Amino acid sequence: MLTYHKVMSLLKNNSIRRKVPNQQSDSTTDFIGFGNLPNQIHRKLAKRGFELTLMVVGESGLGKTTLINSLFQRDLHSQQHLSNAAPEQLYSSIKIEPSTIDIEECGVKVRLTIINTPGYGDSINCTDNYKSILNYIDNQFELYFDAESGLNRRSISDNRVHCLFYFISSLARGLKPLDIECMKALHHKVNIIPIIAKADALTSDELIQMKQNIIEQIHGHHIQIYQIPDCDADEDEELKEKNIQLKSCLPFAIISSTQCFEAKGKQIYGRIYPWGLIDIEDSNHSDFLKLRNMLIIHMQDLQQVTHEFHYENYRLEKLQLKKYDGPQRKLLQEKDNELRRMQDLLCKVQGQLAEKL
Amino acid sequence: MLTYHKVMSLLKNNSIRRKVPNQQSDSTTDFIGFGNLPNQIHRKLAKRGFELTLMVVGESGLGKTTLINSLFQRDLHSQQHLSNAAPEQLYSSIKIEPSTIDIEECGVKVRLTIINTPGYGDSINCTDNYKSILNYIDNQFELYFDAESGLNRRSISDNRVHCLFYFISSLARGLKPLDIECMKALHHKVNIIPIIAKADALTSDELIQMKQNIIEQIHGHHIQIYQIPDCDADEDEELKEKNIQLKSCLPFAIISSTQCFEAKGKQIYGRIYPWGLIDIEDSNHSDFLKLRNMLIIHMQDLQQVTHEFHYENYRLEKLQLKKYDGPQRKLLQEKDNELRRMQDLLCKVQGQLAEKL
Repeated sequence: MLTYHKVMSLLKNNSIRRKVPNQQSDSTTDFIGFGNLPNQIHRKLAKRGFELTLMVVGESGLGKTTLINSLFQRDLHSQQHLSNAAPEQLYSSIKIEPSTIDIEECGVKVRLTIINTPGYGDSINCTDNYKSILNYIDNQFELYFDAESGLNRRSISDNRVHCLFYFISSLARGLKPLDIECMKALHHKVNIIPIIAKADALTSDELIQMKQNIIEQIHGHHIQIYQIPDCDADEDEELKEKNIQLKSCLPFAIISSTQCFEAKGKQIYGRIYPWGLIDIEDSNHSDFLKLRNMLIIHMQDLQQVTHEFHYENYRLEKLQLKKYDGPQRKLLQEKDNELRRMQDLLCKVQGQLAEKL
Repeated sequence: MLTYHKVMSLLKNNSIRRKVPNQQSDSTTDFIGFGNLPNQIHRKLAKRGFELTLMVVGESGLGKTTLINSLFQRDLHSQQHLSNAAPEQLYSSIKIEPSTIDIEECGVKVRLTIINTPGYGDSINCTDNYKSILNYIDNQFELYFDAESGLNRRSISDNRVHCLFYFISSLARGLKPLDIECMKALHHKVNIIPIIAKADALTSDELIQMKQNIIEQIHGHHIQIYQIPDCDADEDEELKEKNIQLKSCLPFAIISSTQCFEAKGKQIYGRIYPWGLIDIEDSNHSDFLKLRNMLIIHMQDLQQVTHEFHYENYRLEKLQLKKYDGPQRKLLQEKDNELRRMQDLLCKVQGQLAEKL
């Protein structure tokens, strides 16, 4: 079977570039679109199509909707309104809002499910915020588990969350307590990709510092975010190079926009300030394109990790709970906790090792 | 006695401009410094000096310290460190940190007390955050009340909070529930000046929309922020014009910086981005200078409102509590509540009237 890596490899020799006038070749900002799959594998993939479920979590105003809209060039949600009048609204809890769009570019279909979480981090007391998210993810595992244990296993619809964009405020110096607590609660359940939202207010130096702070905090609190995989050894050099760039720029610092401007003789998506114009597809301004490329290049890996790691964990836990009870169950839980501690320790040591090198 | 308005009036004819090479005259960005008081009133004011207590409240990372440092061109606090390791630190409460600096410009002394509130809005549960602030303000009233009731009333040191800068995140679309709750708890105790912090990430249109949202929310929730007073009728036209500009730009949208750059042949304080350079003293970029001018022009009014309105309210309440008890006390409290409701209603009607005009 063709993997996404292979597809991308083929892509290099036969890529359809985006329709932008006067576009210059710039290896760091190459735009890889769903529609860019070469003809020889076109029909095969197009028939089945791809499915991806993406969850976006973060405080209001961090541009979750704008990012999704500009990533997939769709108008997914209309502008939310401010809650204004009644004081009791101040304590409202978070909502889970899934919505599905079918994207088709040059005949390739992607069925994309976006799960928005409006209200997250907005109340005065956010103690229980992550629990709704955890419940939703577990419920999807549960549904898949039931379907898998059933008789008709041909048309299982997979609604498990393959990827979670966690939005970090660019105004803080790093992760807030809520960010840490939420990521710690979710990292064994879903592929977390941390995103510094609305990075317009960070100068280059501040951005470097902030990324470093976040990486340190992630290591310090033993949080396991999604590890972008290495390319296969037989992959072409350009893709390998691009992948190293992707890995080094975590967490992605994003400026997104659905507004299009005419500047320097070309159409650009960006934001106009009294002091300058931001081009969101310029890699000096934003990691927007890197994030989009990461999602497309590693779409299959995200699904694979979800299935083989997060779902298997869930399944194992569930089966063990069924099979054993009493002292055995307790023992198993202890073993599980021990394993998790070991995993955390390993992660920590690896982090320290990476710093030393 | 010379009022600040008068001083500023005199200032117009005899102002010492800031030492900036090639500075052009631009009436909207005139810089008024403490040292700009003319010679004839210099000695009288310089001997006594001014005192101002300013409280800054807002989430970490909104640039409270940077604003204070760039407003007064002092290094008040060193960079705070990220809390990293222990999870129990995630639930730490807020601190109240007063620090006093003596500023002297051209012989005029200002004793400035800055009260910082690190930790505000940072925990996962912020339910009790504003209470520490409220307690601090009440304690200062209490101290002043005790001093005023004592024998030696000549050298009362006035540490009452004259002004509170409330920092609003520029990433939200308006006020957050915590902002609303805190302002509602404090607006009868202190002069609140709302500030949109780190406005770098807002385009001009977004800024207009955000200011409008905030003003609507402030009216909607009957919050009474500090009302910038009109100029006296006999004031000169330029000052009147400047004052109208100050009033119309509430809440102040701030970009601050203590970094100095050489650009376009002059020294500017600003921030450098890959897409442009922000000059914080350029009124097209930031309301920084308007905020500074407001503070200097209306310093006396801030003190007067604190003394005649906020402190008198406190004093009245205290005396009534002493004098009456039982049913009379209950009745008085009911009356007080009734009065406050009337005041809120009046504020609301005035707001509606202002919108109609």
